[in-house]
Amino acid sequence: MSTQAATAAARRSKITPERETELYDAVLCLLREGGYDTVTMEGVAARTKCGKATLYRQWGTKAQLVTAALARRRCVVFAGIDTGTLAGDLREAARVAASRRERDAELMEAVAQAYIQHPDLRAALRETVIAPEVAALEAVVARAVERGEIDADNPAIGFVAPCFMGVLRVERLFEERFADASTMRAFVDAVLLPALRVEG
Amino acid sequence: MSTQAATAAARRSKITPERETELYDAVLCLLREGGYDTVTMEGVAARTKCGKATLYRQWGTKAQLVTAALARRRCVVFAGIDTGTLAGDLREAARVAASRRERDAELMEAVAQAYIQHPDLRAALRETVIAPEVAALEAVVARAVERGEIDADNPAIGFVAPCFMGVLRVERLFEERFADASTMRAFVDAVLLPALRVEG
Repeated sequence: MSTQAATAAARRSKITPERETELYDAVLCLLREGGYDTVTMEGVAARTKCGKATLYRQWGTKAQLVTAALARRRCVVFAGIDTGTLAGDLREAARVAASRRERDAELMEAVAQAYIQHPDLRAALRETVIAPEVAALEAVVARAVERGEIDADNPAIGFVAPCFMGVLRVERLFEERFADASTMRAFVDAVLLPALRVEG
Repeated sequence: MSTQAATAAARRSKITPERETELYDAVLCLLREGGYDTVTMEGVAARTKCGKATLYRQWGTKAQLVTAALARRRCVVFAGIDTGTLAGDLREAARVAASRRERDAELMEAVAQAYIQHPDLRAALRETVIAPEVAALEAVVARAVERGEIDADNPAIGFVAPCFMGVLRVERLFEERFADASTMRAFVDAVLLPALRVEG
């Protein structure tokens, strides 16, 4: 099929879920390779042999395409954690957060860079990338309240997610490396559990 | 005096401390206005009526000039805090950190942006901007150990600075605003003091 015929076919057809996955994967690859600023509609089109017009028609702008790719292809790392105890859940969150950082440091870096540099992207990134993780951590704490492990009015409850995300992010400032599993586990045991009055 | 004569004069003379202060202030102004990427040797030269050659001879590169300006003109906000108790010191740190953020949000933003985008600047920024603050917070905790307020082997000790800096930074991610004084004070009371086994 000629390029022209292929473009025409793409224009007529709806984008299949498989094709969408392929497009989103290409966006995330480009993000990892060179950060947000090097992602272009042209680059995504070239890598996926997709018509640029299709990309623009479907997603409107680069910011919307990147946000959609991050939202759809990202797993919420703190979702589904449920070991039965608060200490177990927070230690599991520490483990998966550190392992995710190690596995996908380039993507984390690209997202942090886009967040700082592009104020227009912030609301979308907060909603698609940050809020689901915060909600999952808050669900862990809410279950502990229901089980009677912590008091509903413990003032540390509102700081579990900010502290957790903060230590994950700030380790990079101190030592040019992301927080590792043993650091995050020690943080849970030394700070979060005592503040929540839970002895693990 | 012609431009040529002025340049020659500048080349001959040493830069006075007053002149240096003026140059550093101009660099920080430019950083606040448009972030690291908009600071140029040309821009600093134009604003201060200083010869570009003088800037290059004295500081070598833009990165070195910016780092020097940040290091010299910045006060370490946590330095000199000494209220006599750990609770008092950490609450004072919360107050000054929040007030500094409010006063100089643009500069904080510019520094965060430069840190993320320019790996070559990171070591210098860590040494000049971050390490002195961390050292000042660690001194607060060390004095509390000396006074017998906290056990020397309390495992939370190593997390005071990362948590403090982390919550300061991460609030921005959650709500598009910097951490305010009452949030930081609540964080000290709800998280740090209980983790350090101090009842404020």
